[in-house]
Amino acid sequence: MYNSIGNILQLTTFGESHGKAVGGILDGCPSGIRLDSDLLQRDLERRQVGDKPWGIDFEEFATPRREPDNVDFLSGLIDGTTLGTPIAFSIGNSDIRPADYQQLSHLYRPLHADRTWEQRFGTRDPRGGGRASARETVTRVVGGVFAKTLLNNHGISIEGRIQSIGGHPLTSKEAAMEAKAYLSDLKQNGDTTGGVITCTMHGLPAGIGNPVFDRLQSRLAAAIMSIPSVRGFEFGSGFRSAQSTGSQYINIAKESPDGILGGISDGNDITIAVAMHPVCTLAQGITCSDAQGGEHYLKPNGRHDVCHIPRSVVIVEAMTALVIADLILERHTNTQS
Amino acid sequence: MYNSIGNILQLTTFGESHGKAVGGILDGCPSGIRLDSDLLQRDLERRQVGDKPWGIDFEEFATPRREPDNVDFLSGLIDGTTLGTPIAFSIGNSDIRPADYQQLSHLYRPLHADRTWEQRFGTRDPRGGGRASARETVTRVVGGVFAKTLLNNHGISIEGRIQSIGGHPLTSKEAAMEAKAYLSDLKQNGDTTGGVITCTMHGLPAGIGNPVFDRLQSRLAAAIMSIPSVRGFEFGSGFRSAQSTGSQYINIAKESPDGILGGISDGNDITIAVAMHPVCTLAQGITCSDAQGGEHYLKPNGRHDVCHIPRSVVIVEAMTALVIADLILERHTNTQS
Amino acid sequence: MYNSIGNILQLTTFGESHGKAVGGILDGCPSGIRLDSDLLQRDLERRQVGDKPWGIDFEEFATPRREPDNVDFLSGLIDGTTLGTPIAFSIGNSDIRPADYQQLSHLYRPLHADRTWEQRFGTRDPRGGGRASARETVTRVVGGVFAKTLLNNHGISIEGRIQSIGGHPLTSKEAAMEAKAYLSDLKQNGDTTGGVITCTMHGLPAGIGNPVFDRLQSRLAAAIMSIPSVRGFEFGSGFRSAQSTGSQYINIAKESPDGILGGISDGNDITIAVAMHPVCTLAQGITCSDAQGGEHYLKPNGRHDVCHIPRSVVIVEAMTALVIADLILERHTNTQS
Amino acid sequence: MYNSIGNILQLTTFGESHGKAVGGILDGCPSGIRLDSDLLQRDLERRQVGDKPWGIDFEEFATPRREPDNVDFLSGLIDGTTLGTPIAFSIGNSDIRPADYQQLSHLYRPLHADRTWEQRFGTRDPRGGGRASARETVTRVVGGVFAKTLLNNHGISIEGRIQSIGGHPLTSKEAAMEAKAYLSDLKQNGDTTGGVITCTMHGLPAGIGNPVFDRLQSRLAAAIMSIPSVRGFEFGSGFRSAQSTGSQYINIAKESPDGILGGISDGNDITIAVAMHPVCTLAQGITCSDAQGGEHYLKPNGRHDVCHIPRSVVIVEAMTALVIADLILERHTNTQS
Repeated sequence: MYNSIGNILQLTTFGESHGKAVGGILDGCPSGIRLDSDLLQRDLERRQVGDKPWGIDFEEFATPRREPDNVDFLSGLIDGTTLGTPIAFSIGNSDIRPADYQQLSHLYRPLHADRTWEQRFGTRDPRGGGRASARETVTRVVGGVFAKTLLNNHGISIEGRIQSIGGHPLTSKEAAMEAKAYLSDLKQNGDTTGGVITCTMHGLPAGIGNPVFDRLQSRLAAAIMSIPSVRGFEFGSGFRSAQSTGSQYINIAKESPDGILGGISDGNDITIAVAMHPVCTLAQGITCSDAQGGEHYLKPNGRHDVCHIPRSVVIVEAMTALVIADLILERHTNTQS
Repeated sequence: MYNSIGNILQLTTFGESHGKAVGGILDGCPSGIRLDSDLLQRDLERRQVGDKPWGIDFEEFATPRREPDNVDFLSGLIDGTTLGTPIAFSIGNSDIRPADYQQLSHLYRPLHADRTWEQRFGTRDPRGGGRASARETVTRVVGGVFAKTLLNNHGISIEGRIQSIGGHPLTSKEAAMEAKAYLSDLKQNGDTTGGVITCTMHGLPAGIGNPVFDRLQSRLAAAIMSIPSVRGFEFGSGFRSAQSTGSQYINIAKESPDGILGGISDGNDITIAVAMHPVCTLAQGITCSDAQGGEHYLKPNGRHDVCHIPRSVVIVEAMTALVIADLILERHTNTQS
Repeated sequence: MYNSIGNILQLTTFGESHGKAVGGILDGCPSGIRLDSDLLQRDLERRQVGDKPWGIDFEEFATPRREPDNVDFLSGLIDGTTLGTPIAFSIGNSDIRPADYQQLSHLYRPLHADRTWEQRFGTRDPRGGGRASARETVTRVVGGVFAKTLLNNHGISIEGRIQSIGGHPLTSKEAAMEAKAYLSDLKQNGDTTGGVITCTMHGLPAGIGNPVFDRLQSRLAAAIMSIPSVRGFEFGSGFRSAQSTGSQYINIAKESPDGILGGISDGNDITIAVAMHPVCTLAQGITCSDAQGGEHYLKPNGRHDVCHIPRSVVIVEAMTALVIADLILERHTNTQS
Repeated sequence: MYNSIGNILQLTTFGESHGKAVGGILDGCPSGIRLDSDLLQRDLERRQVGDKPWGIDFEEFATPRREPDNVDFLSGLIDGTTLGTPIAFSIGNSDIRPADYQQLSHLYRPLHADRTWEQRFGTRDPRGGGRASARETVTRVVGGVFAKTLLNNHGISIEGRIQSIGGHPLTSKEAAMEAKAYLSDLKQNGDTTGGVITCTMHGLPAGIGNPVFDRLQSRLAAAIMSIPSVRGFEFGSGFRSAQSTGSQYINIAKESPDGILGGISDGNDITIAVAMHPVCTLAQGITCSDAQGGEHYLKPNGRHDVCHIPRSVVIVEAMTALVIADLILERHTNTQS
């Protein structure tokens, strides 16, 4: 189903942005895994205020919508340890302001899913983006924490990083400060920008994944492309590989292996890169359309991100962790008799 | 399972490169669809000799391994029309030369799945690449022909194109001839190269696809990443979108829409771009490794591609068609009561 | 996953018997369906106090564990109407008495899943039956209410009935009173009994279901066999058909059709029969075992059913409704182009 | 999809009764399993001529349609041993007589899927039963042979038996001879009958199966109910359990355990019972209907079974083996971290 991801370790999520709560059920998590509460708090906070590459704080470019994100675990845990049963969790939507959206309920915002949602379901939540809102991603972070803990027990770690913001690479502290200055300018203008996030899987053993249609990279790509605003995905040498000659590529891959061959991990680190387009709610104002084709100029309330990239690193990590944990649990199945 | 793709329209494939046959079962295809034999022959031929962008022939850079590719339909058709039952087909492997591979059976070729396959399954086919061979892709083309025909009945067409070969864009006849000259040089040197293929879905109605995890782009990405040698995937504005500001991006998307919002088609054309690394069997020779860490210099037999991009366009089309046809069949399900 | 059921309309449930809450997510429910609150309350009550065949009340044979069963809807509904998004719901476990189970945490009760659960998951909930408790079935009833409403919109109704209790058929008011007298005797002796429930699907159109492996009866059987204590399933002429001759059977089926041919509905009513073994917690006392093979005589606390059949009718209905609603949503897929 | 069964070990079948071939793809079978050719031949023969309980031969009551059933393996095996890749196989339909069916192509035979198939797919194979024919079951037997071999390697065996034929229990040689005499009478009259088959799983370890919806008995029931003509399924104490008191049932289950608790195997043998209705093509003649409601008396050609029960034992075994092998491959997944 379209609100579930994973085969063995399966996350099903629920919740509208301005409804009562968002949450999910994580099914298939083995018993005996201790919930790492510190990691949970850290990852939830990273999603709210964003990462601080090279120690530089980008929090001022994140939406001021802040909710306590208190995760209420309803099942599946006893004394903080998993039972092997479905782990249900709910996070109340405390900072909801449906009134802010009343004016929007008949408008289609540019590059939002307002209209396509109507075309698909015949209706949409009049109280805001509904499921097509970044609010939904908090449930991925919770699922990701269990996946990361499980992977940790297998010596595998998942590390996300900002590669670039609005075309500005974050390769040093100076570069990060330049990117910050760029964002300050954009904020001044009521504009926004996107960026590229990378994520590396360390410690993955060889032999994980499947050939033909269910390749490791197919699973990763599907999970990553499900994150709002993602427009591109690559792994290893990515789009650059298309420009090299075979002899060059063999040398490149010797130095820095792609990590996957034939859909199966080869024991090297795997790095993916993820391109995200800018947030399309601009403080400078946006032009919305309506069902009759009319245009409406709108000044948003200011509770939106100038740049969501720092806040999205943990989401990319969560989706990556969910995919890899799922494949780790699967690995004892289709092998030798 | 890892040899199947699709939910409603499901293709399951079989066959080792140097075994008796390759083939598949296409399940879930509605009744009453006429098999388009011309399209089948044309697409099978495109996979053998490659596309001819701007009329330029790239056949000389394709592997001389040529098989008649006679598709033997075992079930699911009566008088060339589908019955609604599983369509089974088999294509004999006539031009097999297992002896060519005897020397390889204990070696791991660079950037091939020889070793990872062993790590995953505890064994591998000593007669060549087995399932991890481009031979497998012929079954995707057959499945794709049914998907294209079904889509055609819905006014949807799928059009693949070569965007670039080894970094040379194919934007005109002159550019295509330059790319051909580049390939001639590579062939001389016994080298190879990769490229980028685009594929456009025309006529897709709005409202196709699903939100949250099962997005249209997630399905496309998973299917495309399952094609051998693919390293990158993007749709619409892709990686470029990460560098633009929000105001720029809104304008870009007005001119040339991405075609998907919130995981659901918006009625505009959708274009994906696919990056493929070069074929890694080089006529100039390759260095293989063995299980003991030894290195072995090898001179391949010459039955390999200098550039597989012209031959891969139809494969990208087939996978795209299978995904879209599957979603078209699904679209009557989760909507209004 | 093993806590989910359904393809298009998918119910995933959670919750331990003596944990914080039980609940679920119903995904794939179309938009625009009004929650029938009266039906919800009626069905929840039927699960607590049991059906009253021929007006005879069997409530005194039901467990005195009574919880308010207040269903808290967390998502998927606006003004009582479905949005097409996942419907999450939670029901607090108010009447929990974990202390009652402390003595049981190292014992294996006869014919309970205490030991097999440990063998499967390496642990079990020390606070009672965990997921292997009849408490879990309340979530099926909630899912079933949405399924019934959806079916109602299609002119389909699901009607469960008690066929027999402990071998006593319930074919008349007198028969029902005899069955009640039988239960009174059992209660006196601290004993229990089982029974047979039938369930009829009225108004199902022809052409629902699938041939070969995914038959309508396969789906029904799997769903029904997932109800605790079920040991037998049949539809239409059932086990009796095995004893008839072909000519007899053709006549029987003309009078009272089985309703399914080749896995597909034929437009006639379909009736299934479900055999349930007696509840195995006896007021007269039970002999439990432990991991060391020791035996322990135990006098239960009295919060158990003498006969769970009257309370199980609504559960059989719910599972039946979930299967049929799922197939109804699926029916537009694999048909003609 | 509806022509596939299994999660990890997945059998997908194809083929119309009077088309070119029937066959399938068995995906997910581990590498290194030797195909037991003797078992394959024996099981294929059992499906043709039927079992011989107590040494009594029932072959004369089986259809005289006999095909060599030469299984052509197209992939997945090398030197008779599995590679871990999909095992494709095809069995030619040699003894087809489409002309026999010409008169039937507009008629609906009693209790056949002729009409429901049309209602579901908008068409049906005019050359006979198509997929809704017992011919299809030969592919289950082939899949079952691999499953049985895999189970054998784990010390598990599957043993089917005839419990009764047309109400005549087969509990001794004398009883079997009485049943045979009964069939001779039926044959004389051009009539048919059904029966009950049991199947026992020996050596199954404890801890196999899943709780809640994906119970061991749910999987078994779905698989068994997919066999043509099955109308009832039970395991262990089955329908009898519904008539016993709790204290009786605890004693019965102590002597002869059901083998499954909470959806999970407990280490004891599991026995299922399967009720099959009589074949409904009677040599004495049948009354068919047509789309206009007309009735047509028909004298079949005589190539049909008087009793298909002896031939069906191996099919029940095959489906049972496929389910258990699938669960055995799954068992390393959802357990402890």
